[in-house]
Amino acid sequence: MTQQLDDAFLADWAVHSRFGAVPGTNGVDRQAATEADGEQRAWFAELLESNGFTVVRDAIGNQFGLLELVPGAPYVLTGSHMDSQPTAGRFDGAYGVLASAHACVRVAEELRAGRGSGESAGAGAVVNLAVVNWFNEEGSRFKPSMMGSSVFTGKLALADALATTDPAGVTVADALDAIGERGAGDVFGGDSGREVASYAEVHVQQGRSMEEDGVTIGLVNATWAAHKFEFKVTGAQAHSGSTLMVDRRDALLGAARLVVAARELVDEFEPGMLHTACGELNVYPNSPVVVASEVELLLDLRSPSADVIREAHAALQRTIERVQREDRVEIAVTAEHSWDQNPYPEAGVELAREVAEQLGLTHDRVMTVAGHDSTNMKDSVPTIMLFVPSVAGISHSLDEFTKDADLVAGVDHLTGVISRLVRGSLL
Amino acid sequence: MTQQLDDAFLADWAVHSRFGAVPGTNGVDRQAATEADGEQRAWFAELLESNGFTVVRDAIGNQFGLLELVPGAPYVLTGSHMDSQPTAGRFDGAYGVLASAHACVRVAEELRAGRGSGESAGAGAVVNLAVVNWFNEEGSRFKPSMMGSSVFTGKLALADALATTDPAGVTVADALDAIGERGAGDVFGGDSGREVASYAEVHVQQGRSMEEDGVTIGLVNATWAAHKFEFKVTGAQAHSGSTLMVDRRDALLGAARLVVAARELVDEFEPGMLHTACGELNVYPNSPVVVASEVELLLDLRSPSADVIREAHAALQRTIERVQREDRVEIAVTAEHSWDQNPYPEAGVELAREVAEQLGLTHDRVMTVAGHDSTNMKDSVPTIMLFVPSVAGISHSLDEFTKDADLVAGVDHLTGVISRLVRGSLL
Repeated sequence: MTQQLDDAFLADWAVHSRFGAVPGTNGVDRQAATEADGEQRAWFAELLESNGFTVVRDAIGNQFGLLELVPGAPYVLTGSHMDSQPTAGRFDGAYGVLASAHACVRVAEELRAGRGSGESAGAGAVVNLAVVNWFNEEGSRFKPSMMGSSVFTGKLALADALATTDPAGVTVADALDAIGERGAGDVFGGDSGREVASYAEVHVQQGRSMEEDGVTIGLVNATWAAHKFEFKVTGAQAHSGSTLMVDRRDALLGAARLVVAARELVDEFEPGMLHTACGELNVYPNSPVVVASEVELLLDLRSPSADVIREAHAALQRTIERVQREDRVEIAVTAEHSWDQNPYPEAGVELAREVAEQLGLTHDRVMTVAGHDSTNMKDSVPTIMLFVPSVAGISHSLDEFTKDADLVAGVDHLTGVISRLVRGSLL
Repeated sequence: MTQQLDDAFLADWAVHSRFGAVPGTNGVDRQAATEADGEQRAWFAELLESNGFTVVRDAIGNQFGLLELVPGAPYVLTGSHMDSQPTAGRFDGAYGVLASAHACVRVAEELRAGRGSGESAGAGAVVNLAVVNWFNEEGSRFKPSMMGSSVFTGKLALADALATTDPAGVTVADALDAIGERGAGDVFGGDSGREVASYAEVHVQQGRSMEEDGVTIGLVNATWAAHKFEFKVTGAQAHSGSTLMVDRRDALLGAARLVVAARELVDEFEPGMLHTACGELNVYPNSPVVVASEVELLLDLRSPSADVIREAHAALQRTIERVQREDRVEIAVTAEHSWDQNPYPEAGVELAREVAEQLGLTHDRVMTVAGHDSTNMKDSVPTIMLFVPSVAGISHSLDEFTKDADLVAGVDHLTGVISRLVRGSLL
């Protein structure tokens, strides 16, 4: 029986992983609301419908599969996101969505068969089931990331999200319309008549601690603290050959000093206590013989400790003041976003631990460095976040990989979690 | 008479400066083969034709105005380029083209009136006159720079130039066709039956030494030495939050270290002996939460001394080796181009000095840091390169400025130079 279920999951997983496949690699390029995203959404909708779900989209393109078991009752919502970074792994997000669909199908079958799992075996459903594929978790094509779950939880205005443009000037609204994935209104909340009772998500770890510690199920108990900056460095356009060095106000030089300083900050703290990065940097006019007048860059500080973030921020500020003075450029923060170390509810961590024990799966508490849609959801409803291991922790890369055994263990575990939630746990 | 000529030049100059005008500024955005470039070329062709020139284009879109005075004889060619960097000054290149047209018209008028200038007053033309507007000197939309004069002088293959694409994927051939400026074959050389006898170009200095020294006419006697690199820095895509710092191979960090190192190199030499720059840098995948896997950047070293270039290059190489080792990235040179300090012919410098003396214009020998189309031409024919001052040396900037008095002095001087060349000087 278990072998059959595992095989069914892995068969669907093989198809699921091919949308937006990058030739010659194990990875995908499936950014939000692209053609590949649209094709995968259409296939996934068919999969859900063939398993008895009703498929609907809300106004920001979150895709839901509803399975009503108890008319009028709230829903256990479970899912993740199917969009990817450009040239990235096929597991990040996509695994959690398909795992959620299979877990819900298994739980519905259990309920129909009068079977159950664990302590509440045989008990019936008190809430309904819904699978979700959140729109644009990655934020690579349209900023910010976690757009679908941010609109869903009221942290981002729908109109602002729909008006956001990609680098080619296409709005979210037009991109969603182009793939036929923009719904008319709310699917939950508002005047939809539906409410969310709880939320569960499984994801690959994007770190290597679980693999190293031999842990199959990560019980996510908190997010790292973070401070994210958008900087604009302003200098003055000039001839990059003939202008005297002392006359230059080179925005790219100023930006490069920030990138280097961010890396060097890391060494001022204990190993593992501070992660810094600049992944996006745009130069204007970006011409071979012109000193840049403007550079925009994103810079992140992340730590398990909010104190470390504060100290790193202060040090970064001192660098900014020095670069402004010495390189005669202006450095402005055009946007920033920070959060403290942020716990997931303890009752959910404990529930997930019990399920892992029951299934004989190794488990441990882990923090998440990366943000997830569950980071939004946990501020609204009881939320459980789960990890499965990621080989060498490689993430946002074509080389991302998780073993089949861990994928199917994660589906088993999520099934156990959903089975308890649908019977009223955490309500 | 002189006042009338000056006024006529400045009137045309006012019109000439408005093609591609950037609203609210003194500058222009008139990159090669854009709509603005096409409009200016059409207007300029009319101006030439109304003054008796025959206007023709060659296969790479160099625009010529031919004034045949001595059937079958070679031509004195004079001009510069009308394309600009994005959001740049209106003087760079465009001044030299219009100055050349006015100088040729004046010399032709002198010849018709039996007047002359200086020692050879009254003598007749032994060669013909031609004005040139070189295609794509700037190289901002299509690389490399000095494309038109490079094809003209056989330094770049026509087919390669025509197949070059801009960032949107448009080829030079298609862009020239779109503005109707691609000719069928050669205008000089090949089987055209026409030869170039000599070349003269006037340009704004793009430096501030002439302004500071109170010099009106710069007699360009050499170019600086230069070494230009295109680097590709290769790392590995990774999650920019969750990936351990020790696991990262950050291409943008490696690139930023090169940008900073290039600036710091300058301080190892006497002031003014080394100019370094990085004006163009492109990041892949350039996404907020992804460590960059690839960065391409252009980096230039320039000096009046080839020894300084060699020392700077060796120091840069040591930095590259250190960055490769410490940041675990690969740094490859994907293209490079270097030249030694390169003299303009002494006879031309002397001829230009005599004309300045005769006209009572202050003058001095200057080197050019920037490349010009004359840098190509001087390797083929006797070539004279002239500068007029540039306020504060501001260049490749909307704030570039040269005073009217200097503009008209430059036209007067170029007229004197052309007047001698057309009568056989430097033959």
